[in-house]
Amino acid sequence: MSARKSYQEQLEELQQEVLKMGTLVEQTIFNAVKSLKERNEELAQQIVDGDDFIDEYQIKIEDFCVKLLALQQPMASDLRVISTAMKIAVDLERMADHAVDIAKVTLRLAGQPLIKPLIDVPRMAEIAQKMIRESLEAYVHHDISRVEALIGYDHEVDALYNQVFRELLTFMMEDPRTIRQATQLLFVARYLERVADHATNLGEAIYYMVTGERKDLNC
Amino acid sequence: MSARKSYQEQLEELQQEVLKMGTLVEQTIFNAVKSLKERNEELAQQIVDGDDFIDEYQIKIEDFCVKLLALQQPMASDLRVISTAMKIAVDLERMADHAVDIAKVTLRLAGQPLIKPLIDVPRMAEIAQKMIRESLEAYVHHDISRVEALIGYDHEVDALYNQVFRELLTFMMEDPRTIRQATQLLFVARYLERVADHATNLGEAIYYMVTGERKDLNC
Repeated sequence: MSARKSYQEQLEELQQEVLKMGTLVEQTIFNAVKSLKERNEELAQQIVDGDDFIDEYQIKIEDFCVKLLALQQPMASDLRVISTAMKIAVDLERMADHAVDIAKVTLRLAGQPLIKPLIDVPRMAEIAQKMIRESLEAYVHHDISRVEALIGYDHEVDALYNQVFRELLTFMMEDPRTIRQATQLLFVARYLERVADHATNLGEAIYYMVTGERKDLNC
Repeated sequence: MSARKSYQEQLEELQQEVLKMGTLVEQTIFNAVKSLKERNEELAQQIVDGDDFIDEYQIKIEDFCVKLLALQQPMASDLRVISTAMKIAVDLERMADHAVDIAKVTLRLAGQPLIKPLIDVPRMAEIAQKMIRESLEAYVHHDISRVEALIGYDHEVDALYNQVFRELLTFMMEDPRTIRQATQLLFVARYLERVADHATNLGEAIYYMVTGERKDLNC
């Protein structure tokens, strides 16, 4: 019985680790867009340098999961908690990669004035961050009502992406000198759109963890 | 002993399923680029329509893994086979998503002549396919020598991506009427570069499966 309890404590610890990684990734995305908006190359470089730490975090969580699976014969619901932790860590790591992609754009555009103030891109980032936070809350509290809210946020991000895309295309067509920078900003918008997709993946994984059923949030 | 054998048979079946999914995804990527190159919208539509099947394949493999974990207390090496199957299925599904992204470009450009014949993009796709095939071989034969070859292929894809990027930028600057299409082709190149990254993820997962050690192939 006490071994069982220690197992429960380990499951709890696993979830805390996922939460910590998620909070770190959310902050990294915020900082990536901040570095671009404020043309802060030092901050961008910190994000690039910090990526190894996030990669290691993912591996740490995966090893933890494999250890838990090996030590115990988990029940079905615990199995879902463990396999979901593995999946969440993969999606979080991919989101952090996109933050690095954005930070690299900051570094690439160093010294160039922006062709326009960034407004929709930071809004996309804000919503994507909110999606990560909601997912983490849903994860910790096993609360699927929060998962369903992700669909609406994802649509907002998609709409902003389309808006940014059209706007940048117009810039490029009107003034070919903006093309080089505009394509970089186009990629940034795309990365954020992907981050939001990854957040809906989190939602799907958490829905499965809680209910044992599959739900498609990419609709 | 016979239960153990049936378990081994199930592990074998799991690996066969991963292999089938991988072959399907490899073919989907080939077809996506073919649809773009040959302006075959019917083929592109088939890829878009077929994505649900690939998504379900991933879920099927995941469920299979969870079932195997629940039914047995796997040994460390079997645990790695199972957790690797889950990870490979996730990466394959993401690659298929990129194939869909490319097929959607085919549909979006319907009726427009291409601004240039596609040469480097199909080469990127060929190498990416080769990477998937090598990964699947490495997976089936537990052969890590094939994994290390992925690094060189990934660098080839990156070099082609940079070449395509520069070329399309030049097109756009010289003739702003090409901008709309060139940005789409830019995304296609980016998707293929990502597919190659996912293939190196497969390699890393397989390396871990075979050796129990981690190896960073994104260097």
